[in-house]
Amino acid sequence: MKLNIAVLPGDGIGPEVTAQAVKVLKAIAMEFGHVFTFNKALVGASAIDKTGNPLPEETISICEKADAILFGAIGSAKYDMDPDAKIRPEQGLLGLRKSLDLFANIRPVIAYEDLLNMSSLKIKQIRDTNILIYRELNGGLYFGEKKLTNDNASDICEYSRFEIERIAHLAFKAAQSRKGKLTLVDKANALASSRLWRKVVKELATQYPNVKLNFMYIDNAARELIINPRQFDVILTENMFGDILSEEASVIVGSIGLLGSASINDKHAMFEPIHGANDEFKNKGVANPIASILSAAMLLDHFGLDIEAALVRKAVDKSLKLHITTPDLNMKYDNISTTKVGDFIEDFINNPEETNLN
Amino acid sequence: MKLNIAVLPGDGIGPEVTAQAVKVLKAIAMEFGHVFTFNKALVGASAIDKTGNPLPEETISICEKADAILFGAIGSAKYDMDPDAKIRPEQGLLGLRKSLDLFANIRPVIAYEDLLNMSSLKIKQIRDTNILIYRELNGGLYFGEKKLTNDNASDICEYSRFEIERIAHLAFKAAQSRKGKLTLVDKANALASSRLWRKVVKELATQYPNVKLNFMYIDNAARELIINPRQFDVILTENMFGDILSEEASVIVGSIGLLGSASINDKHAMFEPIHGANDEFKNKGVANPIASILSAAMLLDHFGLDIEAALVRKAVDKSLKLHITTPDLNMKYDNISTTKVGDFIEDFINNPEETNLN
Ligand SMILES: CC(C)[C@H](C(=O)O)[C@@H](O)C(=O)O
Ligand SMILES: CC(C)[C@H](C(=O)O)[C@@H](O)C(=O)O
Repeated sequence: MKLNIAVLPGDGIGPEVTAQAVKVLKAIAMEFGHVFTFNKALVGASAIDKTGNPLPEETISICEKADAILFGAIGSAKYDMDPDAKIRPEQGLLGLRKSLDLFANIRPVIAYEDLLNMSSLKIKQIRDTNILIYRELNGGLYFGEKKLTNDNASDICEYSRFEIERIAHLAFKAAQSRKGKLTLVDKANALASSRLWRKVVKELATQYPNVKLNFMYIDNAARELIINPRQFDVILTENMFGDILSEEASVIVGSIGLLGSASINDKHAMFEPIHGANDEFKNKGVANPIASILSAAMLLDHFGLDIEAALVRKAVDKSLKLHITTPDLNMKYDNISTTKVGDFIEDFINNPEETNLN
Repeated sequence: MKLNIAVLPGDGIGPEVTAQAVKVLKAIAMEFGHVFTFNKALVGASAIDKTGNPLPEETISICEKADAILFGAIGSAKYDMDPDAKIRPEQGLLGLRKSLDLFANIRPVIAYEDLLNMSSLKIKQIRDTNILIYRELNGGLYFGEKKLTNDNASDICEYSRFEIERIAHLAFKAAQSRKGKLTLVDKANALASSRLWRKVVKELATQYPNVKLNFMYIDNAARELIINPRQFDVILTENMFGDILSEEASVIVGSIGLLGSASINDKHAMFEPIHGANDEFKNKGVANPIASILSAAMLLDHFGLDIEAALVRKAVDKSLKLHITTPDLNMKYDNISTTKVGDFIEDFINNPEETNLN
């Protein structure tokens, strides 16, 4: 298969983790005879530094032409501390999601047996957790009209039936192919937008009679996710609630450096770790590349390259089992760097049988 | 002291837990020679059933005249499942908060040594956690203009400098009297309203040089609250983020049935458990009254009745130590009801020395 992949390393630890994912994709291409080409483009704070624009035209055009986008991370402490900044790194990411209409953000949360003891949660609480979060990515509070003066500010949270239906269908279908359970998370007891979500999703449910649908308020969900994560199969929710819940869910997995994601529509697909740019860890070799590598596995899934994706995941599992992991996860060895983890996974893909013997 | 206390039991388990708090306040009044009078009023689904209005005029007037309000819980599954309902129980609570201008909601989160093993979190993670959440309660998404048609819906999240300043001052002062650390939780990388929060709070910080101020995005905070709750002293945040974080924080304490809260301004003060109405547990004797009783303790604090409040807390501690608790917390005895917990705490207050010998 030929794939033209746009690579947007972004800020902070983005470039170093993305480099590992690219390495892994190259190994896969080599092993399976695919032709993957990679085109780098600027985004975020690093794009502002070079061009003054967090999302240069050239980046959009590279992404539009690509079959898939591999995204690193975005953000910088410099802008975080300046509430007056007019130009912000995050506009790069949000602008890209919006201009490519990447409305469905899919975030798997899986408790790895080998990492159960890394979680802040008790093992019996989390074992076998396997949740798929469908986060709406193009609507809601992030994208509504904004006002900001010295004395007043507002954001609008807006949703249309169309926006809700298109992601709800995907979530229902995902539930059908899994345990058949869908949980809509909203705040329908206080928000009109949530009431529309509840209404539309209830209506669609009749088309998916084999999916068991339930509803949960976001405050309650933030609690249930910790005390009983196994109750969830597929979670469907609006943009900001999905942001909050998916980052919170990383505590189940033991490190935020393990969660990849896919942002898709019919035409485009972007793959990115859910973690941020973490400036403070930049170029220290401590950034966990697994989230980026698992995002690359989701990229392979997306194009039906199931065997390839499975091999990447097997390599990741192996690295976890053998403690070939960055410090966030490693209680055993203390000098395994971002690059070393990438190298191990690359080697495993090049020589799956051999590495298995280690 | 003379106190005129409005009692709004509300829905679901509200009445049964509130009854225990009233019992406890009566015991305190008796023991210390105070005169507390109690005036019941309707609110929520039970008010809709009787009057068609979730917040009858009479209720507002009783609350306006009262020195303090003791609130139970609100909500009903009937309305939760009907996104088209025009009249909703929650309007009673939200309307009351708004009409009395109860802008500051204070929610303490304390890990009780005797309950550490009840938490889903590992003991070493949570021991000694002591967080005070200042949640803005009258602004934000809940109260902005709403639109809802069959195909579109929107809510507006709006904040003024004034609204931010008044609660921020309270939070800074609370931090001063505690460990001197204040964390503002927002989503300033995506929301204009959050940027105003960040700006205003940064400006006020110069008036509190002995308070260490830091900022955290809500998604990150939802994770940090679980992996490292001890880093927090006072958390300041807007309405909905406070709703989410405080309910999530209940996992640290081991049961949501343990968290009380105060909603205050210069003139009025309301005290309520943070838990909901939980219809399904109504009249089963399993509802934990501690959240309501600790809300009553906050009521006593509010009027400077420190010794009285301390006695209530001592009684609560004792009940926890002796496993005189409802089933949500009890691994030892299986038939201790809501009323029995209230009775024990009442007895302890009536005979502190004697009960201590048990
Ligand atoms: C960087 C930020 C705007 C972004 C978001 O909130 O969507 C990030 O937290 C994420 O989850 O991808
Ligand atoms: C009932 C609901 C509207 C309310 C809120 O979200 O404020 C509740 O969850 C709370 O936290 O007091």
